[in-house]
Amino acid sequence: MKDGLDVYDIYSRIRKEKPVVHHITNWVTIYDCANVVKAIGGSPIMAHAVEEVEDIVSIASCLVLNIGTLTVDVVETMKIAAKMANLRKIPVVLDICGVGASRLRNRKAYEISEISYIDIIKGNASEVASFAGENVFTKGVDSTEVNLDLVEIASSLAKRKHNTVVITGKNDIVSDGNNTFIVKNGHQLLTHVVGTGCMATSVIGAFAAVEKNRSIASVAALACFGIASEIAAEEVSGPAEFKTRFFDALYNLDRNLINQKIKVETL
Amino acid sequence: MKDGLDVYDIYSRIRKEKPVVHHITNWVTIYDCANVVKAIGGSPIMAHAVEEVEDIVSIASCLVLNIGTLTVDVVETMKIAAKMANLRKIPVVLDICGVGASRLRNRKAYEISEISYIDIIKGNASEVASFAGENVFTKGVDSTEVNLDLVEIASSLAKRKHNTVVITGKNDIVSDGNNTFIVKNGHQLLTHVVGTGCMATSVIGAFAAVEKNRSIASVAALACFGIASEIAAEEVSGPAEFKTRFFDALYNLDRNLINQKIKVETL
Amino acid sequence: MKDGLDVYDIYSRIRKEKPVVHHITNWVTIYDCANVVKAIGGSPIMAHAVEEVEDIVSIASCLVLNIGTLTVDVVETMKIAAKMANLRKIPVVLDICGVGASRLRNRKAYEISEISYIDIIKGNASEVASFAGENVFTKGVDSTEVNLDLVEIASSLAKRKHNTVVITGKNDIVSDGNNTFIVKNGHQLLTHVVGTGCMATSVIGAFAAVEKNRSIASVAALACFGIASEIAAEEVSGPAEFKTRFFDALYNLDRNLINQKIKVETL
Repeated sequence: MKDGLDVYDIYSRIRKEKPVVHHITNWVTIYDCANVVKAIGGSPIMAHAVEEVEDIVSIASCLVLNIGTLTVDVVETMKIAAKMANLRKIPVVLDICGVGASRLRNRKAYEISEISYIDIIKGNASEVASFAGENVFTKGVDSTEVNLDLVEIASSLAKRKHNTVVITGKNDIVSDGNNTFIVKNGHQLLTHVVGTGCMATSVIGAFAAVEKNRSIASVAALACFGIASEIAAEEVSGPAEFKTRFFDALYNLDRNLINQKIKVETL
Repeated sequence: MKDGLDVYDIYSRIRKEKPVVHHITNWVTIYDCANVVKAIGGSPIMAHAVEEVEDIVSIASCLVLNIGTLTVDVVETMKIAAKMANLRKIPVVLDICGVGASRLRNRKAYEISEISYIDIIKGNASEVASFAGENVFTKGVDSTEVNLDLVEIASSLAKRKHNTVVITGKNDIVSDGNNTFIVKNGHQLLTHVVGTGCMATSVIGAFAAVEKNRSIASVAALACFGIASEIAAEEVSGPAEFKTRFFDALYNLDRNLINQKIKVETL
Repeated sequence: MKDGLDVYDIYSRIRKEKPVVHHITNWVTIYDCANVVKAIGGSPIMAHAVEEVEDIVSIASCLVLNIGTLTVDVVETMKIAAKMANLRKIPVVLDICGVGASRLRNRKAYEISEISYIDIIKGNASEVASFAGENVFTKGVDSTEVNLDLVEIASSLAKRKHNTVVITGKNDIVSDGNNTFIVKNGHQLLTHVVGTGCMATSVIGAFAAVEKNRSIASVAALACFGIASEIAAEEVSGPAEFKTRFFDALYNLDRNLINQKIKVETL
């Protein structure tokens, strides 16, 4: 996998190009989503007024959608933004946060992905399995153990959608239907902080803003995310101190740290 | 009081059962409310779309309502959620944030508590006094000194409502009308951080999700909250460092710390 | 400039009077805006329901408006609040966040400032230049390099509006049309944290709540803000640790620190 994958190169392109990453996201983690994009050098903008989303998409290099606290109105705005992003050929990343937990989320995630092309669909195991039509149960927004072949689910969903599918968890799975990657970086303290799933999506958005290959962008983003969490977890007192160090570790990543710690497998 | 109150036992049940705590809350402290529930081992979900609240209540073990940034629409959704929670017999906790500061808040807090059964009503001195019909003035959302018999107010409101009433402050008061408890744990740095009142409500929600006795759940929650603040306040440079340590102290509580530091009185 | 400007005196009046600062602001930085006001001793309240804003303005000493995540409805509420604030003669501070990035923002910032009197208009270089009618481009919500005479823009906009105009950046410019000040305090790490522009606006609001001279209030606020950032930046690992220290530095400011570090010039 290392061949052809220069994670640091993509990371440093974000610092150089400072891409505008437009988010229509949830009200819980909106600050951290913006801040994590800024920590790695991007320029986040959060804008959800239906009257302005097309203007904002027009200055953006990526659109990140997250249905964590969806309402019907905001989803309609997401659709308009996604169609505009398709027209401008900038990538659209959709975090299907909470799919499986309510019929509204199931329906709206489906609608968004039918009315527009989503470059990268991302969720945890139960969310993606549920979205893919498996009969699973999502316990709120936290990941649920599912006894399924997740690689197969990611791969066939990506094939069906002609896009990239990301399933995050202890190991992250990234598939474009033909190529599937496993990112083994990460630390369990991430699961004790609210919003790390949403933040991972925003980081994927920033990487996709500067790297055309959506799967490579996702793999690189998740590797950096996971490596930063491993660095941050050294000698912390708990999840709150971990979170502070995690942001600073993302900010301070360099080529050596990435090359030393990266754990990516190609299937 | 110590007899029959095993605070650590309730705290550890949260870690074990990971209850889903559904919040319809304010936009200021929504992240910290979610994160504090996660710090003690619960699984927060924040969802306010009218079309999905009944589905979400159906997978939750507790419903937390907070009117800190209420709008008329969101309050209507709160009512639907509260009625569903009543039907499912899961506890409803209502933080009457800012009651006394506007007629809208007074009216809506009243409406919610009339149309549904609220298991635990929680506010600071001026909010609860105002809600109980006392002629007091609430200066915004920060607690105001009130020259009233708060124990009497809590106790008679609880008797009238057949529920549990919590008044937070330097000493916290918990009453179910028959039994009244004073929790004397806490540190004044809590008053220099926005949202600690809201977070206390969310922690009460997590405890009530696993402990049927609402007053005992509230007392245990406030004791843990206060003890964690005392631990966090040792040698900090100010309220921001305090907040980080506070979350980690909540995460790291154990039986010894709780038993050493707990200060609860039964009236 | 030092003559007549006792920054610490204004700072300590906030601690003593604990002014209520009413915000109608954006959903990204709403928590930090509230928390920064509390860190310096004020009492923030965030309220945006159209039915209650007049009640809330009635208990406030300052109104802070920020269009960072504007919607048409919320802007209508802002107008009602601003007119009420004018009637009560409390200062109104408007952060024209993102003006230049969408036509909606341009139009709504204009409408708010036409329908009510804005005591202090605040933005970064590209936002204020765009608002003043210059032909510039705003790249999202982050400041863009503009090749313009910003002092002239601030001064003539203030003259036209009979108010105070603040342009933040490496050096901050404050002008009331007759007097123009440059605040040279600050640290570049502020640009790596989301929301520091919004927080500066909120701090200006807290200072304006206790100091009638709007330009002096703005200069004093920005000096404290910048000084705290300089103190916080000493030996930090990155922007996240910086942010924690920055809040605590604001909380711990004293007369000596301010007098040693203040860098304000009068033009």
